[in-house]
Amino acid sequence: MSWEDSVRKVVPYVAGEQPKQKDVIKLNTNECPYPPAPAVAKLAENLDTDAFRLYPDPDTTPIVTALAEYYGVKKEQVFVGVGSDDVISMAFLTFFNNEKPILFPDVTYSFYDVWADLYHIPYKTVALKDDWSIDVEGFKQENGGVIFPNPNAPTGLYMDLEYVEEIIKANPDVVVMVDEAYIDFGGKSALPLLEKYDNLLVIQTFSKSRAMAGLRIGFCIGNEKLIKYLNDVKFSFNSYTMNRPSQALGAAAVQDDAYFKEITGKIIATREWTKKELTRLGFTFPDSKANFIFASHKSVPAADIFNYLRQQNIYVRYWNKDRINNSLRITIGTDSQMQLLIAALEAYLG
Amino acid sequence: MSWEDSVRKVVPYVAGEQPKQKDVIKLNTNECPYPPAPAVAKLAENLDTDAFRLYPDPDTTPIVTALAEYYGVKKEQVFVGVGSDDVISMAFLTFFNNEKPILFPDVTYSFYDVWADLYHIPYKTVALKDDWSIDVEGFKQENGGVIFPNPNAPTGLYMDLEYVEEIIKANPDVVVMVDEAYIDFGGKSALPLLEKYDNLLVIQTFSKSRAMAGLRIGFCIGNEKLIKYLNDVKFSFNSYTMNRPSQALGAAAVQDDAYFKEITGKIIATREWTKKELTRLGFTFPDSKANFIFASHKSVPAADIFNYLRQQNIYVRYWNKDRINNSLRITIGTDSQMQLLIAALEAYLG
Repeated sequence: MSWEDSVRKVVPYVAGEQPKQKDVIKLNTNECPYPPAPAVAKLAENLDTDAFRLYPDPDTTPIVTALAEYYGVKKEQVFVGVGSDDVISMAFLTFFNNEKPILFPDVTYSFYDVWADLYHIPYKTVALKDDWSIDVEGFKQENGGVIFPNPNAPTGLYMDLEYVEEIIKANPDVVVMVDEAYIDFGGKSALPLLEKYDNLLVIQTFSKSRAMAGLRIGFCIGNEKLIKYLNDVKFSFNSYTMNRPSQALGAAAVQDDAYFKEITGKIIATREWTKKELTRLGFTFPDSKANFIFASHKSVPAADIFNYLRQQNIYVRYWNKDRINNSLRITIGTDSQMQLLIAALEAYLG
Repeated sequence: MSWEDSVRKVVPYVAGEQPKQKDVIKLNTNECPYPPAPAVAKLAENLDTDAFRLYPDPDTTPIVTALAEYYGVKKEQVFVGVGSDDVISMAFLTFFNNEKPILFPDVTYSFYDVWADLYHIPYKTVALKDDWSIDVEGFKQENGGVIFPNPNAPTGLYMDLEYVEEIIKANPDVVVMVDEAYIDFGGKSALPLLEKYDNLLVIQTFSKSRAMAGLRIGFCIGNEKLIKYLNDVKFSFNSYTMNRPSQALGAAAVQDDAYFKEITGKIIATREWTKKELTRLGFTFPDSKANFIFASHKSVPAADIFNYLRQQNIYVRYWNKDRINNSLRITIGTDSQMQLLIAALEAYLG
């Protein structure tokens, strides 16, 4: 016997490439092309660095309070983590704790099956319909829990709230998680449904619409009982997950709503322009309400376009994976970045 | 059935109190009384806040490189996490993955049993000897893994490296973790033993000797294979755990070795002074090589002293727990803080 026999061996999630050179047009990991709110930069210059010697507030009061006020919920309904990955992973560990398989779409955020494998949670996928939409009926079978993104990733397709509610209503005995990483780009959040359903957890992130992927801030909102259970597990894992800079800078970001609306509005406008241009060049795609477009070309394979763009220092995301291997996920950048992308595509395809 | 039936219910770890008022002498959570290295404050003022919109380096290159250089190991031997709690929790999940009980001392860091419960890892404790020292023989029974701190917490007692090696040598088939959160206050690290043992994991933190508890930085060093397995699990959990400020500021801290030696030297000197004073006042304690002293008074119960000190706005740590409920864990602060503590104790006990 060797110590290696006891190792938990897993196939890890592979995140999008993070190129180190600077002259790249980076449209591959759904980051925001604009900097965080001005208040964030201002506060960053004036952080109390002497206080770095002290543990951060274990209750993450500054940012929880800011989020509770912003979304009009109680502080006891908000849980924050080191990115929404941390929040979802913790929620899997806390709530998906039975023998029945959990359900999620077959084409979706590719971390769900990784967490399920890590925690030995059985799962079953529900195939998207031919138009890439989520099959609501498929989520009415017996299960140990439900998670789906809205809008879905990497399709970008948004599902109307009545269907989200239909899924929640059909699953009163398990926790239903709606992963709203991309909700701020034109969709309607399921947050108002919290008043009716005590088994609903709505997960969001600062990494996309709040331009703070580098600070690692995610959160979820649910009824107080759910959040209490989640905090118990979190406090069994690490008392102090969110560091002082993230707690302070995250709170500052939430407080600048005008800037938040300005940059999400700009991204939506750029996305709609990009849709027209991609259509003109022979691409098709589900109608995205996210900060990315999931596009296939009518005649040129996605892998070829991916490789060509990469040579031009334009990074988009491509998965060599069943069902999605002829599509590119293109993050919406600034207007000028998207103009350069369209020009490069035009040169290649035209 | 209800969704609550499937919840993973745990008894969370309770961390030391983090009082919000400022005029407190805080000697209860083993933080450093001095600010981080001057380079940290300087860099903090000049963080690239525009880059906050981008994900951090998933390989945490800046800080891993700085640590590898400092400790004279390969980059592939270093793993970093959000505090050493994150590192140890991840290591439990990765390496303590069999049916046999893991071993740790009965009086030790009180998070070990919490993680074991969280991940459903069986465990068995090995009683400390009457002089509070670790019972090396007790770690020679069959087990699924071993972890102990050196110096131990909350006793502060350091174990000579030959005994550490004896434990490692007796356990070639499991991973042995040495938790060196307090090693920089006079002990010798087990790092040189890495050359001989491929199943050794040495865990350290920036929260004590590097004065950065608020940034949440922990790390471990082991052979490349161990670190690779750990990274696989980490990448199955969250690709980007350490945020941009921590990666940059942590690297800056490591590079200032002179300051590091200065503040740890000061803490050691203050600790030795405090030992003499506590002895004079009728306290006894194991001979600490940590940044705290675990003291009992010959006649006054620890709980009474704790409550008295708290009224004086002096916070120390007390556990109402079997075997340790007549001791106080007192963090070493600045000279003037310790003088105030001793004066307060003198007034109460004298």
